Amino acid sequence: MRQVETVALDDARRVIAAGEQKAREIGSPSNVAVVDAGGNLVAHIRMDDAWMGSIDISINKAFTARAFDTSTGDLATSSQPGEQFYGISDSNHGRVMIFAGGLPLHGNNGNVVGGVGVSGGSGEQDQIVVEAAKAAF
Amino acid sequence: MRQVETVALDDARRVIAAGEQKAREIGSPSNVAVVDAGGNLVAHIRMDDAWMGSIDISINKAFTARAFDTSTGDLATSSQPGEQFYGISDSNHGRVMIFAGGLPLHGNNGNVVGGVGVSGGSGEQDQIVVEAAKAAF
Amino acid sequence: MRQVETVALDDARRVIAAGEQKAREIGSPSNVAVVDAGGNLVAHIRMDDAWMGSIDISINKAFTARAFDTSTGDLATSSQPGEQFYGISDSNHGRVMIFAGGLPLHGNNGNVVGGVGVSGGSGEQDQIVVEAAKAAF
Amino acid sequence: MRQVETVALDDARRVIAAGEQKAREIGSPSNVAVVDAGGNLVAHIRMDDAWMGSIDISINKAFTARAFDTSTGDLATSSQPGEQFYGISDSNHGRVMIFAGGLPLHGNNGNVVGGVGVSGGSGEQDQIVVEAAKAAF
Repeated sequence: MRQVETVALDDARRVIAAGEQKAREIGSPSNVAVVDAGGNLVAHIRMDDAWMGSIDISINKAFTARAFDTSTGDLATSSQPGEQFYGISDSNHGRVMIFAGGLPLHGNNGNVVGGVGVSGGSGEQDQIVVEAAKAAF
Repeated sequence: MRQVETVALDDARRVIAAGEQKAREIGSPSNVAVVDAGGNLVAHIRMDDAWMGSIDISINKAFTARAFDTSTGDLATSSQPGEQFYGISDSNHGRVMIFAGGLPLHGNNGNVVGGVGVSGGSGEQDQIVVEAAKAAF
Repeated sequence: MRQVETVALDDARRVIAAGEQKAREIGSPSNVAVVDAGGNLVAHIRMDDAWMGSIDISINKAFTARAFDTSTGDLATSSQPGEQFYGISDSNHGRVMIFAGGLPLHGNNGNVVGGVGVSGGSGEQDQIVVEAAKAAF
Repeated sequence: MRQVETVALDDARRVIAAGEQKAREIGSPSNVAVVDAGGNLVAHIRMDDAWMGSIDISINKAFTARAFDTSTGDLATSSQPGEQFYGISDSNHGRVMIFAGGLPLHGNNGNVVGGVGVSGGSGEQDQIVVEAAKAAF
């Protein structure tokens, strides 16, 4: 049997609050979502006036970051035409997001224990917000 | 053009907090989700140890309550074999939940402006939690 | 090669207008949809304040009525547990609706050339509206 | 609670009629669809001889324009390989259309309150039709 660390609801709330605050600072109404070690949603918020189509994207960026223990921004590079993971977004029933805004969350032992996803602005804005969110973990 | 009321993030948080507190009181770790007038997710939490399969159910109970301006518990009755809405759960791509735990949220003018869904315990427990959640709206 | 009759957009508009008028008369804001001989959507309206979850249902009642050349209300009877078509709603990827509100549209030669679906009220209300709609064809 | 504007059925009909007229002028039989602030369908028409496969596309172009408050033609540019939204069409269960023909509809206060989508011709034709449709809003 194995012990694994995972994200608790309180952690998710702290991460989301930090993301929300940064999103407000930079004026980019966002969706922020956190998943646990199993890739399953722990919590989500959509700020007023944030894009509706970004609900799904924020949740799936968080999933993707955990599913492959990677930044979705890095995955963007390796999934371009001609690159080694081109086509990876066809897997997992549409849940793999290959653009910036998702980051893995690391536990005390350095393992990935969850993920956070942000969607609502440009790739650059989403990346700023998700980094602030992750920093609160 | 028409003016409609809808749920703001602050409303959703208040509703979710009330549901969470009641769920804790009765010892039924729950998922709680709130959707807006358009049926789109505003916020969601999964309490620690709440069922993973209930993430989707809580979100879809909230959707269903708004989509048909009804309690999902009432819909359970009218969608039994031989009743007038038998088969309604085949519609809307698997998003229609026909058991207790979802309630519509009414605005100042009495119109339905969103929905709240709870999943994690028995039908009875979910109903207790969702009523507490709605009461905070 | 075969000649088939099918619903033109002008026919669909006439059918929908008649349904809309009847829905207004009986105070049941409705979705009304018309499909052609191929079961494909020709036109749809959602009246103000009609249920959002009924968009999909109205379109699929029209599809079902054409797909099986039947009233969906009749299909309700034959798809109950123990009856010969029990389970038919598992076919066609969630598009088969087995409750009242869908009727086939017949051409000059008596063949089915399309379907009309109504959703927004009780089974009884939807049936009244869809009959008025069909009568305008 | 928040007040938001959204598209009424009468607005949708006016938008669709303008699109239909322009489509007739340029000889491009089209599907025209309008969604409200929640991204949900308000009305749709398919002109005689318009592509059947474009029913879904017109509805989803309207959805996309509302879901991301953008022209789908602009999204086409930013979702190319190497661009910031490459992969966005994998989200939202196949509902994100990334080519020309969808425009957001703006309310009195400048907010996006719905979307209109056109499909049936070349990207250039769809764009001409959708602009005429939007102008009637």
